[in-house]
Amino acid sequence: MTPGAQHPDDTAAQPLRRDAERNRERVIATARRVFARDGLNASMASVAREAGVGIATIFRRFPTKEELVAAVFADRMDAYADAVAVALDDPDPWHGFIGYIETACAMQAADQGFADVLTMTFPTAKAMEERRNEAYEGMVRLINRAKATGRLREDFDPSDLVLIHMANAGVVNACGDSAPDAWRRVVALFIQSVEAPARGLLPPSPEHGDLYRAMLRAGPAGLDAPAPDKSN
Amino acid sequence: MTPGAQHPDDTAAQPLRRDAERNRERVIATARRVFARDGLNASMASVAREAGVGIATIFRRFPTKEELVAAVFADRMDAYADAVAVALDDPDPWHGFIGYIETACAMQAADQGFADVLTMTFPTAKAMEERRNEAYEGMVRLINRAKATGRLREDFDPSDLVLIHMANAGVVNACGDSAPDAWRRVVALFIQSVEAPARGLLPPSPEHGDLYRAMLRAGPAGLDAPAPDKSN
Repeated sequence: MTPGAQHPDDTAAQPLRRDAERNRERVIATARRVFARDGLNASMASVAREAGVGIATIFRRFPTKEELVAAVFADRMDAYADAVAVALDDPDPWHGFIGYIETACAMQAADQGFADVLTMTFPTAKAMEERRNEAYEGMVRLINRAKATGRLREDFDPSDLVLIHMANAGVVNACGDSAPDAWRRVVALFIQSVEAPARGLLPPSPEHGDLYRAMLRAGPAGLDAPAPDKSN
Repeated sequence: MTPGAQHPDDTAAQPLRRDAERNRERVIATARRVFARDGLNASMASVAREAGVGIATIFRRFPTKEELVAAVFADRMDAYADAVAVALDDPDPWHGFIGYIETACAMQAADQGFADVLTMTFPTAKAMEERRNEAYEGMVRLINRAKATGRLREDFDPSDLVLIHMANAGVVNACGDSAPDAWRRVVALFIQSVEAPARGLLPPSPEHGDLYRAMLRAGPAGLDAPAPDKSN
């Protein structure tokens, strides 16, 4: 754990560790920029190229793309979990509910990479999944409170939030910088559609397991193991 | 135009032309499969590899990816234009309107490549753009008829159809085969949200020019010139 302890004279090791730390930060900063611009399908190779490091350096630090994604979006996931907490603190549950949707969708609009992160799950990135599960539990409470006020339709399902984030990611990714506010209109329509009373029946929600599998592989190329020798 | 005319003895040229035709058909069939599976961001190189032809062969036939896309989706664009015509024939304009949305969104769900095609424009693929413009004019009539019955909210804009197709593409791409029917619920919510009377104001629609620019570049990587030496 403390490699320095094995090297009583670590004057040489220190700069090496600092170099490694600088490399790590450079990779994360570059990946943040690349994911924001190109979405999560951007390859590890393109991140390495733009960061000016070898592909081996990236894989040494982040053995899977999931781990790189988790490192890049750790602060965004924190902000996302905060948005749920803020919504739960709202004395008006319906206002809190729609405030959460608008905030989370705005976070997607601000970052194409995060737009996808919100519709995916990363089982090996433990810390990130903990934040997500925490946020999910908060959202379920948010939904139940909004239903209790009679403002949210009774057949609203927590999975509908995942679906709106998938839909919003589609709008955000397609509109890019050309029509950067178009998502607001889609989200406004969605909010009006879930307000009680319901205007009609809805097709059933996807099964929990099916949606989970979709979230494991969301995005056209998923987050497949990035190096051929790892995908056997 | 008729190369054979320049070769009075074209017994050698004939098989060559047949080979070329077979190659063309194989490339289109392969591209159809690859686009349906991976979306339009699939590279020309991956199509060439799966078709078992050289990359040069593809570029000789289809100098731009737009032209390959247009060739692959020509029949889908025809079916799409037909869906608009069927909707216009419906004696109940509202029924025709929602029938069109459901049909077009189902076509997106059946083919990830086409899901993106519906939210993009391909200026160099003339025949395809003609079909799209024809369909667009039909949709405007469809919208006006549905408004005239009082069932469609007055502030519905033709661009809202583009937005729902972008949103639906997001759901379809993210859910893939894991939750293949999830889009139906999102589309049902969307339809309920546009039914009159409107439940509230909406943010403005994107400017026509902005949305057009978005459609020129829709998709995380757009349809950039595929070979570096063409992108100068």
